[in-house]
Amino acid sequence: MKREFIGLMRGPAQVMFQANALTGLLFLIGIFWGALSIGQGRIAFGGLVGLTAATLTGYLLPLPVRDGEAGLWGFNGVLVGLAMMTFLGDSPLAWGALVLCSAMTTWVRAGLDRVGATHKVSSLTMPFVLSTWIFLAAARLFVGLDEVALSHPMLPAAQMSEPPATMPTSLWEAIVWPLRGVAQIMLLDSWVTGALFLIGLAVSSPWAALWCFVGSTIGTYGAILYGASATVVEAGLYGFSPALTAIALGCTFHRPSPSAALWAIIGAAATLFVQAAVNLFLEPLGLPALTAPFCLTTWLFLLPMFKFGRDGGKEPDHSVWHHHSA
Amino acid sequence: MKREFIGLMRGPAQVMFQANALTGLLFLIGIFWGALSIGQGRIAFGGLVGLTAATLTGYLLPLPVRDGEAGLWGFNGVLVGLAMMTFLGDSPLAWGALVLCSAMTTWVRAGLDRVGATHKVSSLTMPFVLSTWIFLAAARLFVGLDEVALSHPMLPAAQMSEPPATMPTSLWEAIVWPLRGVAQIMLLDSWVTGALFLIGLAVSSPWAALWCFVGSTIGTYGAILYGASATVVEAGLYGFSPALTAIALGCTFHRPSPSAALWAIIGAAATLFVQAAVNLFLEPLGLPALTAPFCLTTWLFLLPMFKFGRDGGKEPDHSVWHHHSA
Amino acid sequence: MKREFIGLMRGPAQVMFQANALTGLLFLIGIFWGALSIGQGRIAFGGLVGLTAATLTGYLLPLPVRDGEAGLWGFNGVLVGLAMMTFLGDSPLAWGALVLCSAMTTWVRAGLDRVGATHKVSSLTMPFVLSTWIFLAAARLFVGLDEVALSHPMLPAAQMSEPPATMPTSLWEAIVWPLRGVAQIMLLDSWVTGALFLIGLAVSSPWAALWCFVGSTIGTYGAILYGASATVVEAGLYGFSPALTAIALGCTFHRPSPSAALWAIIGAAATLFVQAAVNLFLEPLGLPALTAPFCLTTWLFLLPMFKFGRDGGKEPDHSVWHHHSA
Repeated sequence: MKREFIGLMRGPAQVMFQANALTGLLFLIGIFWGALSIGQGRIAFGGLVGLTAATLTGYLLPLPVRDGEAGLWGFNGVLVGLAMMTFLGDSPLAWGALVLCSAMTTWVRAGLDRVGATHKVSSLTMPFVLSTWIFLAAARLFVGLDEVALSHPMLPAAQMSEPPATMPTSLWEAIVWPLRGVAQIMLLDSWVTGALFLIGLAVSSPWAALWCFVGSTIGTYGAILYGASATVVEAGLYGFSPALTAIALGCTFHRPSPSAALWAIIGAAATLFVQAAVNLFLEPLGLPALTAPFCLTTWLFLLPMFKFGRDGGKEPDHSVWHHHSA
Repeated sequence: MKREFIGLMRGPAQVMFQANALTGLLFLIGIFWGALSIGQGRIAFGGLVGLTAATLTGYLLPLPVRDGEAGLWGFNGVLVGLAMMTFLGDSPLAWGALVLCSAMTTWVRAGLDRVGATHKVSSLTMPFVLSTWIFLAAARLFVGLDEVALSHPMLPAAQMSEPPATMPTSLWEAIVWPLRGVAQIMLLDSWVTGALFLIGLAVSSPWAALWCFVGSTIGTYGAILYGASATVVEAGLYGFSPALTAIALGCTFHRPSPSAALWAIIGAAATLFVQAAVNLFLEPLGLPALTAPFCLTTWLFLLPMFKFGRDGGKEPDHSVWHHHSA
Repeated sequence: MKREFIGLMRGPAQVMFQANALTGLLFLIGIFWGALSIGQGRIAFGGLVGLTAATLTGYLLPLPVRDGEAGLWGFNGVLVGLAMMTFLGDSPLAWGALVLCSAMTTWVRAGLDRVGATHKVSSLTMPFVLSTWIFLAAARLFVGLDEVALSHPMLPAAQMSEPPATMPTSLWEAIVWPLRGVAQIMLLDSWVTGALFLIGLAVSSPWAALWCFVGSTIGTYGAILYGASATVVEAGLYGFSPALTAIALGCTFHRPSPSAALWAIIGAAATLFVQAAVNLFLEPLGLPALTAPFCLTTWLFLLPMFKFGRDGGKEPDHSVWHHHSA
């Protein structure tokens, strides 16, 4: 029972590649803070239900229990729960869809990881992205699922017409925007949540905390440099995907080293453009990019299987990551 | 000659995984009934031409003849023919496109099956879906191909505004709607055709007939529960993909067992949401989902390679299915 | 230094599968002619920068140097440079994006080729297509990237309403249209450029020159037969993808033979419809198809791994092509 509970707590932590229950707990505190601070406690509750449904599903299926104990069944589920309750209204049918969608991520992950293993990469958070896209898209065609926060489907403008972001006017903003980017990894717009996530990461891996913040910073300031929409930049929406890419490339699939650091920086910068591209592709459907830009970019940077610095001599295998434990 | 003819007749049957010429014959009767009952005999004739073109192509290419004799060259072709003549107007250029498109499915299937075999899944009806999407999309840009029944390209509404389906008001409707779902597997809107398809399936495999009807019922009533458009539900358009998923998961790639049955039920339910999602993605293009929702969902449920009940001890391989013969 | 320079010059030649520096030089002359003749020299200069950035990136990464010396690092880069400077306005940010995008193709190619090798196909020009789509899409959301020649995002018309192409009224037009198709491989609308490309090809491989022209002719006259838009046909935009497919299938991945010739002809014809389909899919986003139709069609025709005529007895492997040298 204790092992199962620790596995459950590690679920949120694995969203950022940490097999650490304390990290997971701090993430959950950050999630509840971010959701309650905007008066939307049910978003955090959705995350908990998704986490639990996905993890329980793992125990019901013939899957290796060590994955569950490392939190690998729950991380897609917690994201599904947060996303479904962010974008859909409260109703029994929505909660039913949330449970099915979260449960589905567990076997979708098992399947996609089998495919990925052929090419030595993991499915990352793509099971969350695919499953959530399916159910959010369905919500547009089912009156039983009430969409409350999706953007309106529309044709992209030929050129962006909203006011572009400018450099922050204070040190406060300069730090708060990337912190919001960290919080947006879990779909929350709160710098306090971002700070709690960084503390949670530091408990498990100071490198991960560093790369998370650096990645979000690269995405945010890159978006300012290229003139993205101010409201989108300030909400941290160009920070969350580069943050995840930077953790993945800088200290998860490669050991920290100067060349891995350079790779992570280039990867975070590339993620910025992939984020914009995925946003554009989904505009006619009014669906959110979720963490798809992180997954796509990280695959493009892992698939060549480059060995960096201290990675040693053998062919890399990016289909699994080191499981820190605590 | 007799073996070739039996192989040809098995083509339509393989749309629902049966290598049975009598089943194929009953399917053809159902197709002609459905097409003639709406005064569109050329749709059925299109199916015959597509079946023949795809099967002949198999003999011209260096492919294993046992596939042709099992009907595996023809099933994508018959679907291409039905779809092309449903959505495109009659003209020599349309028939030329139909022949090229049907023929193409034979080598597209050979290629995708090679890729799928790496991951131990088959290409299902995806060769039909891809090839038909290509030619229907092209029809919008070529005045030589006249589209007559495609929906108008439009941006999705934020929320569905058509009257949602309600529970059937008679036992008659309660049975007819899922039967139409069975008929829609071949793009036809006729409960008689659906009944003929079920009889055809029962001749080859009572389990397949059962799962086909159960899958269509799950899709149809799930769509009612979640409030999908009444006209779409009553035409059986939320039934056909779940029906195929249920046959695939319930008795084709797993032997019938209680756990396989549960898997097939969950799979049929998930297909409902995938169907809505694919419909939404294609709205801006005005293209039909065809059987893509079935393929996508079935892959997500097969890729984890779960072993159920009586499947025995060895790793499953879902790249082929058992060939019943008759 | 000489080997590196020859490798650089072979880059443009590899767009059409030739490892020949003289071919590459003639291609560059054609590119400059085409760009200067419309007063847009910076397009040609963009191609040079992209070629150089992608090739240099190869030397900085742990990749096999023989690929660089065969021109395989540069061919995606030159296309990126041409496309970015065709569709985006001149600015330091645009040149920065061009360099990152070109560099990226080198490791994206390495990654996709690893995946492709599993299925015995190469990534063709898909690294160019993916990377360029990302940055052109981002340009719509970043005011720092000024789009100057992308078409406006719009919903597809139900049926094409522009005047359809008619047969050429002179021998001159009959030859010029397919020549423009050849030039459009590098995004240029100039029959002289097309002629220079054919001469460049003939220097390395007369078969490649023949198939390039035949493929463009099939695409162009197929589009006339099916009634595609006159302005699009006359600009050669239905010729360039079939031309590439024909070179790939007719004399690159198969030795020239009667059956390979038939395969190349069918492939070029199929590419015409894939071209229209990709055009339609991208209309709501206002993005160009680039060479995606060639890649998709060629994969569909290579994946079955058919052996033709004089290919010999062993299983084909289409993940690499013969490197002519000069």
